[in-house]
Amino acid sequence: MRITVMTLFKETINTLFDYSIMGRARKSGLVELEAVDIRDFANNKHHQVDDYPYGGGAGMLMMAQPVYDCYEHIRSKAEGKSMRILYMTPHGKVWNQQLAEEFSKEENIVILCGHYEGIDQRVIDEIVTDEISIGDFVLTGGELPAVMIADSIIRLLPGVLGKQESFEEESFSDGLLEYYHYTRPAVFRGKEVPPVLLSGNHQKIAEHRRQESLINTYKKRPELLETAKLTHKERTFIEAYAKKVCNENQDML
Amino acid sequence: MRITVMTLFKETINTLFDYSIMGRARKSGLVELEAVDIRDFANNKHHQVDDYPYGGGAGMLMMAQPVYDCYEHIRSKAEGKSMRILYMTPHGKVWNQQLAEEFSKEENIVILCGHYEGIDQRVIDEIVTDEISIGDFVLTGGELPAVMIADSIIRLLPGVLGKQESFEEESFSDGLLEYYHYTRPAVFRGKEVPPVLLSGNHQKIAEHRRQESLINTYKKRPELLETAKLTHKERTFIEAYAKKVCNENQDML
Repeated sequence: MRITVMTLFKETINTLFDYSIMGRARKSGLVELEAVDIRDFANNKHHQVDDYPYGGGAGMLMMAQPVYDCYEHIRSKAEGKSMRILYMTPHGKVWNQQLAEEFSKEENIVILCGHYEGIDQRVIDEIVTDEISIGDFVLTGGELPAVMIADSIIRLLPGVLGKQESFEEESFSDGLLEYYHYTRPAVFRGKEVPPVLLSGNHQKIAEHRRQESLINTYKKRPELLETAKLTHKERTFIEAYAKKVCNENQDML
Repeated sequence: MRITVMTLFKETINTLFDYSIMGRARKSGLVELEAVDIRDFANNKHHQVDDYPYGGGAGMLMMAQPVYDCYEHIRSKAEGKSMRILYMTPHGKVWNQQLAEEFSKEENIVILCGHYEGIDQRVIDEIVTDEISIGDFVLTGGELPAVMIADSIIRLLPGVLGKQESFEEESFSDGLLEYYHYTRPAVFRGKEVPPVLLSGNHQKIAEHRRQESLINTYKKRPELLETAKLTHKERTFIEAYAKKVCNENQDML
């Protein structure tokens, strides 16, 4: 897979591409990562890429031409292979694990980062295949979301994570929050590790963790339980737990 | 305001803090930004910060002690001022503009970034005031979300954005998606800028943009219209538009 980021902050993107698992995957040749500077495609002598908005208003816009020429340059290097062009915008689909899995099957991903007030709409209409949002909040530019999206995709590529890491990854896809984790020492500031984790009884440990997962999900993201894949026994457990908590709360009133 | 990030990737965080508007705000002294390396607080000679999970399982965990000692160091520098300690986790509240506004009123924000398989739960229970999630997808670590959150908060601090930029910022808070933007040239690859934007008629331009905002929201994020603040005239407009689209779709069948 090849991921190319179209940006005005090439150095920022390149630094981030060396971070942690992305850096490891890049060095091992499991993914090609490149940042391309849109400014290199400005066709005026001051390398200007922004201009005032038609109709007035605050801020500057990125012009269509340098963005388009940058895209053409990337496309010519793809030698006819299919390409998905993502644009980071609040208008887009909210990014999630299902989208990360879908995109992890692509050969060529290009992520276009807006900056300033935005980009001339005509070039977005012309080149973008997928509008993606990272959430309902305002950011300075698309660079941080772009790298986050790249990270979530790259983790899913074959060979990037070790066997054990991959296993944990899959455990997310059952739709529940994780159980809590503990490491040495056995007592920290007076707090003990749950004794079952020290018991050596693997079946009991697995059961304890699954129940903690269910309880965490019930407490913090109850809506996930509607779609989570649970056994009959698990559903009975969490319903009994929910009933107990409600009764306790009512007794307190 | 002071934002401190507790991390194992201090250099990555510091590079990002120099990016765009954050870098500008930092240089102007409008915000203090610091990354603190949790590894500096490891009390063993190999500066080890991770260990195997109790009860078995994949991956390594961050130990409680270095995280706690790092926190104590930051707290001692805050000289008794109030502190919010955010932890990036899928268990948390999903970050949004309302949370960014809430946190922009704080004096001291600390963001704890997990890495590896997670952090010993006992230190999370001990120090964290707010669990925050960036969305339903898996990332390598909390570093990218931490900087994104910092960016969304810093933009709201007085003096960080220019007057015009701030005005645009506010326009987001009416709960609609933005209208489309266009800049020179008037014709790009055969596509013209909407003529009204070249008319010089400010009232018509404002009306066109507001209607485009309503239509974009209806097409891409219709659920936002339920809570958006609309005038009676605007609501009538978008209801008529919705009806027209439905009729056209039915005629095509």
